Amino acid sequence: MLYKMPEFFVVLVEPIYPGNIGSVARVMKNFGFRELVLVNPPEITGEAKAMAMHARDVLENAKIVKEFSILQDKFDFLVATSAVIGTDKNPLRTPIYPEQLTGAIELDGKIGIVFGREDKGLSNEELKKCDFLITIPAHHEYPTLNLAQSAAVILYEIHKLKNRETPLKKTRAANKIEKQVLLEKFDALVDASGLRDFKADIAKKTFRSVVGRGFISGRESFTLTGVFRRAADAAGKLNR
Amino acid sequence: MLYKMPEFFVVLVEPIYPGNIGSVARVMKNFGFRELVLVNPPEITGEAKAMAMHARDVLENAKIVKEFSILQDKFDFLVATSAVIGTDKNPLRTPIYPEQLTGAIELDGKIGIVFGREDKGLSNEELKKCDFLITIPAHHEYPTLNLAQSAAVILYEIHKLKNRETPLKKTRAANKIEKQVLLEKFDALVDASGLRDFKADIAKKTFRSVVGRGFISGRESFTLTGVFRRAADAAGKLNR
Repeated sequence: MLYKMPEFFVVLVEPIYPGNIGSVARVMKNFGFRELVLVNPPEITGEAKAMAMHARDVLENAKIVKEFSILQDKFDFLVATSAVIGTDKNPLRTPIYPEQLTGAIELDGKIGIVFGREDKGLSNEELKKCDFLITIPAHHEYPTLNLAQSAAVILYEIHKLKNRETPLKKTRAANKIEKQVLLEKFDALVDASGLRDFKADIAKKTFRSVVGRGFISGRESFTLTGVFRRAADAAGKLNR
Repeated sequence: MLYKMPEFFVVLVEPIYPGNIGSVARVMKNFGFRELVLVNPPEITGEAKAMAMHARDVLENAKIVKEFSILQDKFDFLVATSAVIGTDKNPLRTPIYPEQLTGAIELDGKIGIVFGREDKGLSNEELKKCDFLITIPAHHEYPTLNLAQSAAVILYEIHKLKNRETPLKKTRAANKIEKQVLLEKFDALVDASGLRDFKADIAKKTFRSVVGRGFISGRESFTLTGVFRRAADAAGKLNR
């Protein structure tokens, strides 16, 4: 069987400045990426085209969607980006660094790298729909990079990772449905365990983030799903 | 003797667009750099200030020089940047990658990172005055990054090198004991779920691998341990 590389998509959520969209298109082509998705974007002006330079094709082929929620059906993994990181008490805001995306390179699937608005970033609702968060290590005094420069750094790191030696593992990534079933079974286990709502919610988010960062494979997902299904059934029967 | 870090300066040679100067100032501050030198720049317009955002101080404190030749007296090392690289027959155009600047971090002196014009880069005469050349690894089809995005990538790499010893994640990783307890509780859950020995063993190894690759934090480990303990207790009581 042929080894397939993952497909990477760059997703801009409600970008404000057309010039930034063009700059992102340019740096995508600089690092060999072609698939741009725009969620509810402004008009693609002449400035956007000027900033894109020799990457107008990326701009012209961009897919436009109306709502963030559509993305979940389109991708196997959604990776959020943010400069606003939390403590480890907030699993939604527990990030990894772009250079730690090593696992992503080894899987066969569609991965969307999601960038938020220039002024407000991504909402917590949007973050919840992503598998996990990456952040760029920056100076504490002013950690918020310009949108196109964030994209430059993250795509540069992925480009570097992609061009390293052939990865050791050739595992097929868990696809969307496999991951969904796994998370459902884990959630059912949490519910069967009788944790209080607040803690149950944190536990569910934590598990999602950990398996996301670990880029769980299809086989691994299947194995853990089996454990959680059986355990939740057993625990549930007792509580009933 | 105290260990001194090198001082890094960003040098822009005859930049054309004031907006780019502002963007470079911003990304300098993002990665903790403050010293900007402009060789024969255009007027610092309102656009430059707008693009600098919270890094106007970097812009305002920029040193302006008339000629490139002045730089040689000011710095211990001048590092040129270019997307136009040569074969190893042309030592002027034989580059290293930004991540290979490891040596630079270890010296005590003034280092200028020199960026050329947006359209023509640095001349061969200017290159000759620099100590060596760095280039950003990019896609062969379109390797020329926008000035401010080149600066983003190179300053990002230097920032990483400077901060290498600092742990990557702000979160405390799960220590050996925490992970051991987590794995024990997961194992107990597997046993309570009634999987056959062979499959149970695979499930245990799978979980260990996934949380390892996800670099689970102490808090995350604690959260999942709680879920597995409760669920295993509930399931175990039924099977007993």
